[in-house]
Amino acid sequence: MIGRLNHVAIATADVAAASKVYAEALGAEVSDPVDLPEHGVRVVFVTLPNTKVELLEPLGPGSPITAFLERNPAGGLHHVCYEVGDIRAAAAQLVASGARVLGDGEPKIGAHGKPVLFIHPKDMGGVLTEIEEV
Amino acid sequence: MIGRLNHVAIATADVAAASKVYAEALGAEVSDPVDLPEHGVRVVFVTLPNTKVELLEPLGPGSPITAFLERNPAGGLHHVCYEVGDIRAAAAQLVASGARVLGDGEPKIGAHGKPVLFIHPKDMGGVLTEIEEV
Repeated sequence: MIGRLNHVAIATADVAAASKVYAEALGAEVSDPVDLPEHGVRVVFVTLPNTKVELLEPLGPGSPITAFLERNPAGGLHHVCYEVGDIRAAAAQLVASGARVLGDGEPKIGAHGKPVLFIHPKDMGGVLTEIEEV
Repeated sequence: MIGRLNHVAIATADVAAASKVYAEALGAEVSDPVDLPEHGVRVVFVTLPNTKVELLEPLGPGSPITAFLERNPAGGLHHVCYEVGDIRAAAAQLVASGARVLGDGEPKIGAHGKPVLFIHPKDMGGVLTEIEEV
């Protein structure tokens, strides 16, 4: 049921600085920063042959990653995202197995314009985990 | 120069418990636990269509992930690993760009039997980053 690792999201105070090592030292394909005000983040996409790394910087006062960066001033992994075919079926199976789906369990439209849900980190080895319907 | 995301490594106190959600709720292909005593870890490999997740549990008294789990008792992302074609060239370019390669800069043989190096998390958006020559 689980599909590809869609992306690894790294929260950092400064995406321009963080993307420099990827571009200059590792020779990665790195986008210009993209502002997503409706999601409260500025994103740099690092395209790898098999997946993406998303470098996230807080944008605006209500950014969902501000609290994370207060706890982790040097930045760090914010979440991983796996693709699923049917997000409601995936959520039902997660809940049936005892995992906690965050929020009201209703999929929201994520930063890629597709339905997403988040699974509680304590049920995923300590890692906040997003599932995205593709 | 940078290649595929080879794996995402998640450190957890109990790989059997952590792998259960991947196998039962997400329907992922999950290996039996594999003991790697020379690396001080027990590993469960979660195979996705495009990459791997490695769930790591400390093995033995000198495990390299014991201190991480003391700081993060609920577990968490330990490192990400990118593939490179020539690890010495990659290390030289990282150092030239101001990134810190950990240890003495000499590649070691990693858990997959291939040369690896680690880059300081502070130079990679807060995420400990492994490069592996493939």
